[in-house]
Amino acid sequence: MLLIKNVFFNGKRRDILIEDNKIVKIGEVKREEEMEVIDGSKKIAIPGLINTHTHIPMTLFRGVADDLPLMEWLNNYIWPMEAKLNEEIVYYGTLLGCIEMIKTGTTTFNDMYFYLEGIAKAVEESGLRAFLAYGMIDLFDEERREKELKNAEKYIEYLNKLGCERIKPALGPHAPYTCSKELLAEVNKLAKKYSVPIHIHMNETLEEIKRVKELTGMKPFEYLNSFKFFDGVKVIAAHCVHLSDEEIKIIKEKRVNVSHNPISNLKLASGVAPIPKLLKEGINITLGTDGCGSNNNLNLFEEIKVCAILHKGVNLDPTLIKADEAFNFATINGAKALDINAGKLEEGALADIVLINKDNPTLQPLENISSHLVYSFNGFVDDVIIDGNVVMRDGKILTIDEEKVYEEAEKAYYRLKE
Amino acid sequence: MLLIKNVFFNGKRRDILIEDNKIVKIGEVKREEEMEVIDGSKKIAIPGLINTHTHIPMTLFRGVADDLPLMEWLNNYIWPMEAKLNEEIVYYGTLLGCIEMIKTGTTTFNDMYFYLEGIAKAVEESGLRAFLAYGMIDLFDEERREKELKNAEKYIEYLNKLGCERIKPALGPHAPYTCSKELLAEVNKLAKKYSVPIHIHMNETLEEIKRVKELTGMKPFEYLNSFKFFDGVKVIAAHCVHLSDEEIKIIKEKRVNVSHNPISNLKLASGVAPIPKLLKEGINITLGTDGCGSNNNLNLFEEIKVCAILHKGVNLDPTLIKADEAFNFATINGAKALDINAGKLEEGALADIVLINKDNPTLQPLENISSHLVYSFNGFVDDVIIDGNVVMRDGKILTIDEEKVYEEAEKAYYRLKE
Repeated sequence: MLLIKNVFFNGKRRDILIEDNKIVKIGEVKREEEMEVIDGSKKIAIPGLINTHTHIPMTLFRGVADDLPLMEWLNNYIWPMEAKLNEEIVYYGTLLGCIEMIKTGTTTFNDMYFYLEGIAKAVEESGLRAFLAYGMIDLFDEERREKELKNAEKYIEYLNKLGCERIKPALGPHAPYTCSKELLAEVNKLAKKYSVPIHIHMNETLEEIKRVKELTGMKPFEYLNSFKFFDGVKVIAAHCVHLSDEEIKIIKEKRVNVSHNPISNLKLASGVAPIPKLLKEGINITLGTDGCGSNNNLNLFEEIKVCAILHKGVNLDPTLIKADEAFNFATINGAKALDINAGKLEEGALADIVLINKDNPTLQPLENISSHLVYSFNGFVDDVIIDGNVVMRDGKILTIDEEKVYEEAEKAYYRLKE
Repeated sequence: MLLIKNVFFNGKRRDILIEDNKIVKIGEVKREEEMEVIDGSKKIAIPGLINTHTHIPMTLFRGVADDLPLMEWLNNYIWPMEAKLNEEIVYYGTLLGCIEMIKTGTTTFNDMYFYLEGIAKAVEESGLRAFLAYGMIDLFDEERREKELKNAEKYIEYLNKLGCERIKPALGPHAPYTCSKELLAEVNKLAKKYSVPIHIHMNETLEEIKRVKELTGMKPFEYLNSFKFFDGVKVIAAHCVHLSDEEIKIIKEKRVNVSHNPISNLKLASGVAPIPKLLKEGINITLGTDGCGSNNNLNLFEEIKVCAILHKGVNLDPTLIKADEAFNFATINGAKALDINAGKLEEGALADIVLINKDNPTLQPLENISSHLVYSFNGFVDDVIIDGNVVMRDGKILTIDEEKVYEEAEKAYYRLKE
């Protein structure tokens, strides 16, 4: 049993008792001998953050190329480097991402990439919670489609057999402009067969929407809905930057979860998603950082702040996206999208807990903490507990050898750049 | 003499030698006995950041009220609290701001506020470099005008007499919609008399521009230009969110320095300044955080990142505001606006230097550091040297008792809220 004693939480001091991987009591807890105790008296407790759209090994592409048109960035930098990836390189890239997520208070992430054995190995060691999807792209080629679907199914079975409670499989068809209708229809069936969520890129750029329209005569959400892609499954749609009213209706009716990635969308010049409009429809908004090729970090606190200020600024309305709403996007809404009992500090919930040292100038005066966490803090946290295990203590990660990962990540980077 | 040995700087390892308050050598320096030495082998050196628009004691208003319409925010929260300020409260609010700026790598700031004795005392103790202006508002009342001008002149003389090389006076007429033409004309004369810069809010909101147009028949820059406000003086104009082509021409011709405050402008829903357009005209763009009532922090790294991504996103052009440009806004351009030999690491420049520990996941792989500093780092720095003095060492501020300031800031906050 693990006891966090006397911690600030929702404006009061409380004790949080953890047994196995769950919060069993919040309130006053009598300290007993067999308990491991964390002194919370200088700390603020929040639920671990949930990042709903990542490509975690892309930490290795951080800063490789910025400020470029999308196709130049992909053709000249990202794709040539991705062609040289292997399980080992991806393993170190993932560990680097895990270090960053733990240090910035993220406890769960939803990922889409390749070489999932390397990713899963790193996640298992790190202590993080993750949904891992193999990214499928068939470019409308039948042979490639069969291969991709086989791979996806193979990885679902692999991850299920791993027996790590924190790692769950998902399905990752890349996007409607890179995946055939047949692939997408099959993904719907596989999602039902294995009871796994679908993670897909939707409506990120005006150009891709135009391409789908040319190919199918429909907008992307209309097109997918035409063959019941959203029916009977849980979908997390990343980006959703440009949406017609008809598409918003489909998102609402089919209960599609939106992963809003404001920083990536700004940096790649994709645009600004109509989040206030989606909120009015009661759509579940979550937050994602995207990969480090387009952000360039995994600090979800930045995403929370940018989300909270951006929509005010571009809509000239300071009352849009209140602090608590933005914080919920990164916690409880993410948990809802991934169907896990997390994103909140409550008895019975998963023990995914982050502690932040209050002796930080951005948290002073120590009032209005829920505002500070959104608009001011944006920094590094102190302790991270995931699934009941202490993963970081006073800024020191217990599960990963940080310095070794930095060295290996640098070596991997040079192998990719060769 | 202070020697920073073997530090990463512009992609190479160098030594930086400081004598008195200046950088005297960059390259290889033989260590001698009388030198104090900082081991730079795990660190990256950058010039200290320059924040060109702050209201530093407003740290005490952090998180007091967010997500509200401007007038409600001012009338119900900010103004009632400001009415209770005094020298002591302002002193602690300033110290709190100094802690935050030092920890996030800012070495110079340009401030406008009241109770300048309290501010100057805190800045002097902290070791920071600052330009301090008394914020003047006459609301077109003659009696108030005389009082404000007298105050401003009194503070210039007070600050000049202080004899602290790091603290310089400036003139702070609040804005064209709160200051009479007579006051503004007198400010131009005083700026020449004392050779001090003018710090003013310009074109922050559409509403205030409309008000100036109603009062004068002109847009704010046209109006000020009509009585030669910009002639023969150095002006730093904060915000500049909404500008006509005619006004941009005036900014260019009169060499007005723009302090771009993207986060405050988004959060208060003022809009997005036309920075790419101003850059095309060769106008000097600098960065400011504004006060903690509207940001809510003083971390200029956030401002750099938001600036670099925002204009790409809203203009749908990923090539706008490149990483180096955004970094220059926060360093060399700020120095140019304030006319100090800083914002760069060069022999002969002021020794305002920031060191960042490279063992940080957001800086890995340790390549493309100039990109990481803009798009990924956004965090806390390790060592800060200002005017040749070591102000922070390995994350510990040497000039201020942090814990005491947090306690006093909280007490001050409750006095303001009473």
